[in-house]
Amino acid sequence: MAGADYREISAIARKRRAANISAYYQVPDIDLNTLPNNLTEYALKSGYYDPRELEILESDATKIVRNIADQQWTSLEVAKAFCKASAYAQAFTNCLTETLYQEALERAQSLDEHLARTGKPVGPLHGLPISLKDNFIVAPHPASIGLAAYANEPTTKDTVIVTILRDLGAVFYTKTTTPTAMMMAETVNNVWGETINPLHKALTPGGSSGGEGALLAFHASPIGIGTDIGGSVRIPAAWCHLYGLKPSFGRFPVAGSKPSIPGQEFILAVNGPMSRSLSSLKLYCSSILSDQVSPWLLEHKSLPIPWRHNIVQPPNRPLRIGFIGPHDNLVHVQPPVLRALTQTQSALSTSGHEIVPFAPTLHPIIIKNLIASFYDLGGTAITSLLEPHNEPVFPSMQGYTMAAKAELTVSQMRAKVIQRNKLQQAYLDAWNATADGNKPPMDAIIMAASPWAAPRLGGWQATPYVGYTGVANFLDFCACTFPVTFVDKEVDRAVDMREFEGRALSEMDGKIQADYDAEFYHGAPVSLQVMGKRLEEEKVLEIVEVVVSVLKEQGVR
Amino acid sequence: MAGADYREISAIARKRRAANISAYYQVPDIDLNTLPNNLTEYALKSGYYDPRELEILESDATKIVRNIADQQWTSLEVAKAFCKASAYAQAFTNCLTETLYQEALERAQSLDEHLARTGKPVGPLHGLPISLKDNFIVAPHPASIGLAAYANEPTTKDTVIVTILRDLGAVFYTKTTTPTAMMMAETVNNVWGETINPLHKALTPGGSSGGEGALLAFHASPIGIGTDIGGSVRIPAAWCHLYGLKPSFGRFPVAGSKPSIPGQEFILAVNGPMSRSLSSLKLYCSSILSDQVSPWLLEHKSLPIPWRHNIVQPPNRPLRIGFIGPHDNLVHVQPPVLRALTQTQSALSTSGHEIVPFAPTLHPIIIKNLIASFYDLGGTAITSLLEPHNEPVFPSMQGYTMAAKAELTVSQMRAKVIQRNKLQQAYLDAWNATADGNKPPMDAIIMAASPWAAPRLGGWQATPYVGYTGVANFLDFCACTFPVTFVDKEVDRAVDMREFEGRALSEMDGKIQADYDAEFYHGAPVSLQVMGKRLEEEKVLEIVEVVVSVLKEQGVR
Repeated sequence: MAGADYREISAIARKRRAANISAYYQVPDIDLNTLPNNLTEYALKSGYYDPRELEILESDATKIVRNIADQQWTSLEVAKAFCKASAYAQAFTNCLTETLYQEALERAQSLDEHLARTGKPVGPLHGLPISLKDNFIVAPHPASIGLAAYANEPTTKDTVIVTILRDLGAVFYTKTTTPTAMMMAETVNNVWGETINPLHKALTPGGSSGGEGALLAFHASPIGIGTDIGGSVRIPAAWCHLYGLKPSFGRFPVAGSKPSIPGQEFILAVNGPMSRSLSSLKLYCSSILSDQVSPWLLEHKSLPIPWRHNIVQPPNRPLRIGFIGPHDNLVHVQPPVLRALTQTQSALSTSGHEIVPFAPTLHPIIIKNLIASFYDLGGTAITSLLEPHNEPVFPSMQGYTMAAKAELTVSQMRAKVIQRNKLQQAYLDAWNATADGNKPPMDAIIMAASPWAAPRLGGWQATPYVGYTGVANFLDFCACTFPVTFVDKEVDRAVDMREFEGRALSEMDGKIQADYDAEFYHGAPVSLQVMGKRLEEEKVLEIVEVVVSVLKEQGVR
Repeated sequence: MAGADYREISAIARKRRAANISAYYQVPDIDLNTLPNNLTEYALKSGYYDPRELEILESDATKIVRNIADQQWTSLEVAKAFCKASAYAQAFTNCLTETLYQEALERAQSLDEHLARTGKPVGPLHGLPISLKDNFIVAPHPASIGLAAYANEPTTKDTVIVTILRDLGAVFYTKTTTPTAMMMAETVNNVWGETINPLHKALTPGGSSGGEGALLAFHASPIGIGTDIGGSVRIPAAWCHLYGLKPSFGRFPVAGSKPSIPGQEFILAVNGPMSRSLSSLKLYCSSILSDQVSPWLLEHKSLPIPWRHNIVQPPNRPLRIGFIGPHDNLVHVQPPVLRALTQTQSALSTSGHEIVPFAPTLHPIIIKNLIASFYDLGGTAITSLLEPHNEPVFPSMQGYTMAAKAELTVSQMRAKVIQRNKLQQAYLDAWNATADGNKPPMDAIIMAASPWAAPRLGGWQATPYVGYTGVANFLDFCACTFPVTFVDKEVDRAVDMREFEGRALSEMDGKIQADYDAEFYHGAPVSLQVMGKRLEEEKVLEIVEVVVSVLKEQGVR
């Protein structure tokens, strides 16, 4: 099927976006070359926002909904502040696709009227602006997911979770960029171009929920939703110094969004919240998984498991934490990430928590299977969308083109499912084997979210590694990132590559380690993740809270 | 791969079985031709068992575990009674594969010793004999699932649920017959031959858990486990007048048993308990899904949803029940099943419950997709096991041979998954659309488990219909059968086929209706099922309890 050339489509889409934004906000011209690396800091200090706006932009979701419910703030002024900030975020980082300013402001006003009239918020998220990765559908706005094929195509039916969040009081005001078909860890595509990291302009914000990462890190959203099939929530969350939760499948409704590979269930794609604050994530989870909503009554794939409280019992007991590092048997982390791991481990240990030995023995075979499955299942699905519009294929996505030429049969897929299920059980068995005498198995694993603090723009294409996040997708485990530190050129010295060659685990390992440059990466955000087992989202967030508080107590953060 | 001829393999297997049984019990020769239709009644009255044995055989699981815990009975005498009865069940119905008498008696004795020593049962199922469909593995016994390929092959690792039940105190004493690859609703295969229905010797007990059905209906097991991918728990349960629970996937551990189609997850195979008593099912469910066991800690696919109590709130409120019948838009039920539906509906209505209109509009497209998926996914898997041993293919299984010649590709499978997911959501939407003003959606659906009371031996081959059960498999809904009545030749008159032809929904519909013969089927057991939504097992059992109690109150049972 031949269609319009992607360049024509892209021009239409970009023109629409520019017009939609400039109808509301005129952002002064920006010359990135003249700006410091940290664009967020620069923007917050440049007088773009008045003090009230600044206070709103720096508030977490809990404070926002409380202040609106208490009628200290109006929904409208909150919505206006985030709409405005998102226009600046776009100008600085190129992180938006469709803006919904008109409906956001109308919606906020109607929420204010409701509150004034009834004295009651419509729900626990009354007036909360939530940004959406582009694959979530707010009809009739297009959901391009970085593809010319979809870029200007109107949509007809809202994503289930969009409807649920709206019913809870959320205000949708913008959608955000993704890479092509959401299948890269950098946010670049042939429709919207490239998104950059507002915490360090020479770096990528990651992907595929990279527009969310940039918008949130720019303080232009209190909370956003990403999706994750190989790390697409956690990679941008980590590279943008955010909390990002990748839940297990079935915990949150998934129906009705634009998928990367429709009908593919070998690796289960999920959506999850991203925010600068952990309490915002908790508010989001407990609001959706409440008796009021019961998403399992509305959506076939949702599991009837309400949000559970105080899972770690007794409270404040010492945790048993496994650590994976300095490598996952495939790729070593770069020096700043190693420091984050070491400091976190040491801080936990000092605070009375127990570090449990756990070897990532199964990671290489898991990652091999994961990557093969993306190509095997996505080859035809993705290339059939690119070709009609002459879209060039990014270097890291060549595997899809190859796989499309030789599709697997059902019997071959069955063999892969058998292998996947064996590995899933084997990992659980290995986890359980960390029980020690009277001590139960470890509570969670702390590990890197990627080898990098955040890689340079375009850098991931040559070394497209998602092994640190992908293992949770393969296992359907849950995981949440948390910010730890920033690259410090004085402390995080590069390793001697002549020495490293002898212990490099692969060609990719060598390339990734050689990419590290303390001077260049100075100031980049460094994050880690806590991984729990299947459907242990509450426990993971509770453990993240403990870890972050220990990091603060011990002076790491 | 060529292997031994299935006839040689079968001879070895049958010889082993006969030797294993005759080492313990000598059952007198039986001439089925001279016996009444109801073999169970005949056997219970023939002096085979002493009064104590009879009391044990007629007890439900709850009474058995209570009497053993109270030291009224020993585990050993209970195990002996069921081992002995199973030997008779085999002689009358051909329902056993591997017998485990030696280990059952040793195990029972050791449980008795434990109880005497400690005063405490090892768990809530202490001493309870549980029979196992042949695909559950108790190593090293073979798990043939009706295939020559596996019939004499030792196994190495117990099925997860077997281990869990053993830890709870269960005693395993026999495994039971299935049809070839567990993919027919009659229990017949080239290894063990044909199993017959002990409640009516001219009828099939159904399948694929047909050996369980026959053994339980013969009073030779208090509770057994079957598996269900298209009705394999519920069809034999219905045709043998049993309660049989098909849970949603993830509720009970599934790992480690012999699958029909390995690596197939398009339709999720599950296992569930079967029994003559509903309280036995509840004991089973609550014992496994307890904090003591937490199967989700042991098995990757298990969901962390403990067994919930008193779901219907407030208790004793009127239920809102949808009814499907006299047809499902594909096949009409035969007259006795129609009477069971009518009487049940009327009894519920009289007792103050509400009957909710619900049309099975989606059933034809669902069943078409379900059947196609068995062939598409199972074709190569099953024929590759039959061919090396020259196994003849049963008429109802010819679709597998055809499908093996033209395997689907991954992209074609993805299209089928998309279609399946749409239908699943559409069914849930239709269910929710039964909400009416302030009234919530219906609580459950009552429907036939098949068009027949139970079909004549071999009768299903020409009309291999599993639509009434298969819909729950396609939707991953849960359902439980319950006994209602028996065919009464005076009441359940055949319809006039000249009249029926005008309203027959298909050729199969006509054939199935024409098969009905009041005289021949007189005395056959008639059952129905309650279907709930996904993961509503507790609610379904609670509703079955209400329905059965209403049927008794209203004199239907």
